Amino acid sequence: MAEDASGKGLLLKADLIADTIRDEVQAALARASTPPTLVGILGTSARPSRFYAEFTRKQCDALGVQFVLKLVGSAENAERADGEGVEEAIIEANEDVDVDGIMVYYPIYGGRQDHYLQQIVSPLKDVEGLHFKFHYNLYHNIRFIDPKSLRLSVPSSVPCVPVKDDIPPPGMVKSILPCTPLAVVKCLEYIGVYNKILAYGDRAYGKTVTVINRSEVVGRPLAALLANDGARVFSVDIDSIQEYTKRPRTPPETTRKYLPHHVAHPSQLSLQECLAISDVVISAVPTAEYKVKTDWLKEGCVAVNVAADKNFEKDVRDKASIYIPAVGKITILMLLRNLMRLTLYKDVPESAIGSA
Amino acid sequence: MAEDASGKGLLLKADLIADTIRDEVQAALARASTPPTLVGILGTSARPSRFYAEFTRKQCDALGVQFVLKLVGSAENAERADGEGVEEAIIEANEDVDVDGIMVYYPIYGGRQDHYLQQIVSPLKDVEGLHFKFHYNLYHNIRFIDPKSLRLSVPSSVPCVPVKDDIPPPGMVKSILPCTPLAVVKCLEYIGVYNKILAYGDRAYGKTVTVINRSEVVGRPLAALLANDGARVFSVDIDSIQEYTKRPRTPPETTRKYLPHHVAHPSQLSLQECLAISDVVISAVPTAEYKVKTDWLKEGCVAVNVAADKNFEKDVRDKASIYIPAVGKITILMLLRNLMRLTLYKDVPESAIGSA
Repeated sequence: MAEDASGKGLLLKADLIADTIRDEVQAALARASTPPTLVGILGTSARPSRFYAEFTRKQCDALGVQFVLKLVGSAENAERADGEGVEEAIIEANEDVDVDGIMVYYPIYGGRQDHYLQQIVSPLKDVEGLHFKFHYNLYHNIRFIDPKSLRLSVPSSVPCVPVKDDIPPPGMVKSILPCTPLAVVKCLEYIGVYNKILAYGDRAYGKTVTVINRSEVVGRPLAALLANDGARVFSVDIDSIQEYTKRPRTPPETTRKYLPHHVAHPSQLSLQECLAISDVVISAVPTAEYKVKTDWLKEGCVAVNVAADKNFEKDVRDKASIYIPAVGKITILMLLRNLMRLTLYKDVPESAIGSA
Repeated sequence: MAEDASGKGLLLKADLIADTIRDEVQAALARASTPPTLVGILGTSARPSRFYAEFTRKQCDALGVQFVLKLVGSAENAERADGEGVEEAIIEANEDVDVDGIMVYYPIYGGRQDHYLQQIVSPLKDVEGLHFKFHYNLYHNIRFIDPKSLRLSVPSSVPCVPVKDDIPPPGMVKSILPCTPLAVVKCLEYIGVYNKILAYGDRAYGKTVTVINRSEVVGRPLAALLANDGARVFSVDIDSIQEYTKRPRTPPETTRKYLPHHVAHPSQLSLQECLAISDVVISAVPTAEYKVKTDWLKEGCVAVNVAADKNFEKDVRDKASIYIPAVGKITILMLLRNLMRLTLYKDVPESAIGSA
């Protein structure tokens, strides 16, 4: 942690936060009877993916998780195409009872073909939390689930259990959250944006957050997650700005049996106006050119860069009180925590759900 | 059907083809004890979507299908946002036992958020065939399914039944195919590109087809469908050309228990080279600017335009022997045929699969 005598904001590297989470994952692993097995599927020759796969291996080795890296397509043989064999490798890992978790290194095809592959991974092994069933739970603020429900293709319509604390009721488990949004939440917990004095499930109440980018992998789930935790969130994308809030001024007409969860409305504010009132600014724009203007930030805000490129200007700490330049190291730990969680799901007997 | 004395190719409007299919759907409806109910969900004020919804109603009225149009978001009230309430409307229709099929008018958000909504529709009511489970079946050439398997989130790993004819074995039903690719196949059947002398499931063998655009909604499923039916298919997208074939020169290493299905390889051919050897050219590029050069077409080929805009040049019939300018009227009939098919799925007892 670098405190700057010049009066600049704190530069907070993810390592410190990662250390505390690593301890938590390690403790959970120590309780496991056998080390879980994670299969990584690398189907392209892209350097960032290969690098990330090696990084996964290091983290798994350090924590005692069995990591099996499966090379297919151009990762295995330069004459093969990107992505060739990835779907088959996923299906084999789905069916292999010795595999506890599956991680696929994206992007492969980009866009919707990658999204298709994300649905092929069994939700019972989806350590990345990219299956639509987990997104559904997240968007609907469903935190505890009957693990059997993951075997069904249709989202559960059973009335949900209201959340009082983070202990699931008997027979229920915590739903898996997508790793990158979860890593950001962990950072915000660490630095006190989440206020532990407030009730569990509402600890970001009172905070205004701008999330730049509304992809289904990071931006939208992150905005929904923060709004479900009580924050007022501006979700900014190229063509629109939406406001996500659990406490809309005009309540939605039909809430039916749903738990209180965020609703999204178009916002009339500009990005500059959003930033001027935001306590936290999170940017996840996948281009090196995009920069959040330091001038537009609120004095003393928290800035979190989620993109591979730097989305903030060099002088961001002239305005931000805390700047987190990257969250990748925490993301991988969240993934391993999801892996531990999924091993608990497996205890559900197959017979409870019929065969097919 | 307009035969042109000038020696130009045939301009084949979809109406003629639609008439034969309408008869088939009508006959199936006549056998139903009660008319099925289709719910349309319109969540935007976009004119093409509203127009398509009205067109759906007309077709349903003509065929005796109950059509209930649900207006939500900006379709219901100009002050509401595009897409507001669509997900809730889907969930309600999923749960309503009186609803047999659900159709959502896309695009709403575009891209991955629409894809997310497509997974929320119960596959047992997915008349559009956009659920990933149906794409999975299509890509893997799985034509007959146990309808129970649709209730499960993980793709079935049960060895598949080889296809001999189009009659499903006892207890099995035909899988749903996405409407637009299916409409194109119907056109190709009608005009004899599919050769009935060949074995069922391989009737496009010997034909070379170029499909321009590789989206997950039209291009990729269509290319896979044609390749699974025996054609050699070039799948062309902005950044790459792939060859899809069921008969690769070097067979894939692991076919395991899969049915023979297409494999995709990068092609070294240019678009011009693909077109020069293609018996059929299908274009589905969603921009008015894009045009397939008539000069590049093979003399006597079949040209099919699937896009809302005209993707072929005005003089396309100087080269094409048959030109089909639009398939929308057939698409809606395929959707109603899917609706009839899904009502058969419902006969599967819930108890066979457990509750959750």
